[in-house]
Amino acid sequence: MAARIHNFNPGPAALPVSVLEETREALVDFKGSGMSIAEVSHRSVIFEEVINHAVDRVKRLLKMSDDFKVLFLQGGASLQFSMVPMNLIPSGLSADYINTGTWATKAIKEIEILGLPHKVIASSEDRNFCYIPKEYDVSQGAAYLHYTSNNTIKGTQWASTPKAGKIPLVSDMSSDIFCRPFDPAPFGLIYAGAQKNLGPAGVTFVIIREDMLERCPKNIPTMLRYSTHAGKNSLYNTPPCVSIYMVSLVLKWIEETIGGLDAMERRNRQKAELLYNFLDQSDFYKGTADKDSRSLMNVTFRLKSEELEKKFTAEAGKHSLGGLKGHRSVGGCRASLYNAIELESVKALIEFMKDFAMKNG
Amino acid sequence: MAARIHNFNPGPAALPVSVLEETREALVDFKGSGMSIAEVSHRSVIFEEVINHAVDRVKRLLKMSDDFKVLFLQGGASLQFSMVPMNLIPSGLSADYINTGTWATKAIKEIEILGLPHKVIASSEDRNFCYIPKEYDVSQGAAYLHYTSNNTIKGTQWASTPKAGKIPLVSDMSSDIFCRPFDPAPFGLIYAGAQKNLGPAGVTFVIIREDMLERCPKNIPTMLRYSTHAGKNSLYNTPPCVSIYMVSLVLKWIEETIGGLDAMERRNRQKAELLYNFLDQSDFYKGTADKDSRSLMNVTFRLKSEELEKKFTAEAGKHSLGGLKGHRSVGGCRASLYNAIELESVKALIEFMKDFAMKNG
Repeated sequence: MAARIHNFNPGPAALPVSVLEETREALVDFKGSGMSIAEVSHRSVIFEEVINHAVDRVKRLLKMSDDFKVLFLQGGASLQFSMVPMNLIPSGLSADYINTGTWATKAIKEIEILGLPHKVIASSEDRNFCYIPKEYDVSQGAAYLHYTSNNTIKGTQWASTPKAGKIPLVSDMSSDIFCRPFDPAPFGLIYAGAQKNLGPAGVTFVIIREDMLERCPKNIPTMLRYSTHAGKNSLYNTPPCVSIYMVSLVLKWIEETIGGLDAMERRNRQKAELLYNFLDQSDFYKGTADKDSRSLMNVTFRLKSEELEKKFTAEAGKHSLGGLKGHRSVGGCRASLYNAIELESVKALIEFMKDFAMKNG
Repeated sequence: MAARIHNFNPGPAALPVSVLEETREALVDFKGSGMSIAEVSHRSVIFEEVINHAVDRVKRLLKMSDDFKVLFLQGGASLQFSMVPMNLIPSGLSADYINTGTWATKAIKEIEILGLPHKVIASSEDRNFCYIPKEYDVSQGAAYLHYTSNNTIKGTQWASTPKAGKIPLVSDMSSDIFCRPFDPAPFGLIYAGAQKNLGPAGVTFVIIREDMLERCPKNIPTMLRYSTHAGKNSLYNTPPCVSIYMVSLVLKWIEETIGGLDAMERRNRQKAELLYNFLDQSDFYKGTADKDSRSLMNVTFRLKSEELEKKFTAEAGKHSLGGLKGHRSVGGCRASLYNAIELESVKALIEFMKDFAMKNG
């Protein structure tokens, strides 16, 4: 086996080694069943336990009441962009959106395609989405307020849950779910593609408050109704079993190895502060996000020229530091410091950055 | 490691051991990348090769022209039930459906929910779907003719591709894709949940003819338009990478280990004939499907009473023969003999069935 690299990929992203090793064990014989985790029936007791234990862990991690359902769906956040408005806008109401970057823009585009009523109540597009808007007025009686909690491409993150009074929040937490504790009470729905902080690509994690289920209309496709999946414990049709199993192992790792979400946040702050502090004292690298809007998960920065950035990511690759290229839509560099990234990887990155700056400064 | 059982599960189902073992190797370090197959970027060269090689294998296996696109989607056949009519019915046209069982009925239900024009031109519901209809008249100018090639629950299968003249065929091949060769030319679209003959649950295999892409409307969600995925080689958003990788290994196994689809069919016929011949000479077991409509993939049979059937599946389990319970909607027993099932497993099943009949006859 080759040595594992320091993997700063934006998603699919690094997973805890223990999760990969446990999955490997389950691949030919899962728990003495004589079958792979890929071969067991989704309606078997052995698999229902996987789902139920995962749901229980989520409830414990978030100290979440039984008013919420935890679902494992498919199609990624990109399908949620459509499912959310199809399900959660009662007749006569309109939804509010805050635009903080590429993914929020895509979410807004999907409600436009559906022709459903909505209003963009705030945006940080004026400065290329390098900050989180401070001021916004939630529309009275809005169906929900949708926001993207962390902006993978722009390197910004909401420092805390936005205030919306009694209007239910809907959040795309794909790139920062479980990076820190939060109170689920104000949320009507939370969704997250698993491939950043939760597991492999191929499963979409959803938390929905039970009163939202009453909004789901009957005249949309069965598979696109949250109530379909909530009523069947995510087993309406065959779910992505292997991916759900891996998510269950990541949740176990957060709860048992890391010690829960408070410990997870301390670990993530330590990693991010180390890298941001280094950026702030450097003349060679320049962070792109406003300081008060910086993401714990995706640290975006630029070098003096695109040529230098290209050289930087190429040489980093030779030093076992992978995934540092910025998103193709914005260029630059990005280090994604998701939950599974170890402090030692951040230290290795900083050492390389120091060395590269010295040689190319 | 416990001994592997004879796994007759209807899906998720048995996979070739070589596929499971190769996946296991890729789980911590994929091809010397220092990353798991679950951690590599879907936009990396290493992963694009996985997709491209899989597409190439499909084209070779089916001797398929470049008029067809191969896609890897999410949501299972259940989401295809809605995506097909949303995309493939041009304004003013209506679609034809043939109803041969539970899954065909569900496909028809979804077009009803969408309120799109359609006609059920044949059905075998009169005898509880125990046969494939022989006669049907395809409507002139129909948008497509939809049929379910194999009926997992009822144990029936189309012996050959139905004739529909110039009307494009659309087929749910979830439970028999690649069990035998077929000519793709008359098909506008083919779809299959992977978890029976192709891989693990969590990826939906689609073949679409290019002229069908022109039908996809712009006013439906981006993720639900076939043209979105066809234009991006299944990489519009993050695809289910691990599941696609496993499908690529199953395709390699069909092509290189089995020797292609002719060899696959011979192997499948040998297995199914062995079991059907045994059923036909037995007074103790009784096949439920008409002989001319029998499935190569799912052999459904009854015993004299439900008590005896319960005893049968329980005792079979003790003899390492798993997954023999019929679908909960119909009861009885079912042995699923998908591609990965070895002849020795069928022989072991028949030996057990003989012994059980002797002791309980």
